[in-house]
Amino acid sequence: MATDTDIEEGTAFIPKYDADGLITAVVTDAASGELLMVAHMNAQALSRTVETGQAWFFSRSRKQLWKKGESSGHVQRVKELRVDCDQDAIWLKVEQAGAGACHTGRRSCFYRAVPIGTKGEVTLEFIDADKTFDPNAVYKK
Amino acid sequence: MATDTDIEEGTAFIPKYDADGLITAVVTDAASGELLMVAHMNAQALSRTVETGQAWFFSRSRKQLWKKGESSGHVQRVKELRVDCDQDAIWLKVEQAGAGACHTGRRSCFYRAVPIGTKGEVTLEFIDADKTFDPNAVYKK
Repeated sequence: MATDTDIEEGTAFIPKYDADGLITAVVTDAASGELLMVAHMNAQALSRTVETGQAWFFSRSRKQLWKKGESSGHVQRVKELRVDCDQDAIWLKVEQAGAGACHTGRRSCFYRAVPIGTKGEVTLEFIDADKTFDPNAVYKK
Repeated sequence: MATDTDIEEGTAFIPKYDADGLITAVVTDAASGELLMVAHMNAQALSRTVETGQAWFFSRSRKQLWKKGESSGHVQRVKELRVDCDQDAIWLKVEQAGAGACHTGRRSCFYRAVPIGTKGEVTLEFIDADKTFDPNAVYKK
């Protein structure tokens, strides 16, 4: 059994999956540093990502392994992969192919701000929300 | 019941919590863009963060609400808060007080890289791993 010191200060890669067998994956643009998306990986998605240098995830809604860009062509080439202190989160710095990472047609999934200092009902504000591609065309719905 | 369009293209804030009542929170440095940490929020942590502009989380290990920096003094002032397309992840751009965000004594929790292109056993590589503060002193263990 790995100790906290093994996990936090060691060189052994001991990813900690949650009860559903998933680990959180944060994806940023390797060039701009922009946060593109947050997704999840199971052990198979993580191994494929490490082995191939292409981003693979596990879709919680579709319950299946998923190569990012398999439908859209917007693949992500991993320039650097990091793990956090307690090894329950992964950071991918990627080269994003195509016009964006978000299935809504935007470069980043984080195109709305939550105003700070509000109590009660919150109204989101669109920021960086211009669509960079037409999702209907790209995903051929 | 909110439709996908409401959730993805609307201005209503409808955070989607997982089965444990948690949502993923990604924290970056507002100035440098560096990824500092990944944590989780329950509804109470999220409301307090929105209302106060200070980062609050929910600790899965300690099972309690947690104001970032309450022991260390390393609080996080939220400069901008964003939500992703399906509203199951939150992005905090913060001004990090003190020497770092990581309980191990480092600025970022992501101080080890996973080499890409490896099959089988993986050996982590320390990167940006210098300690910026002494956790034993700061947390008075």
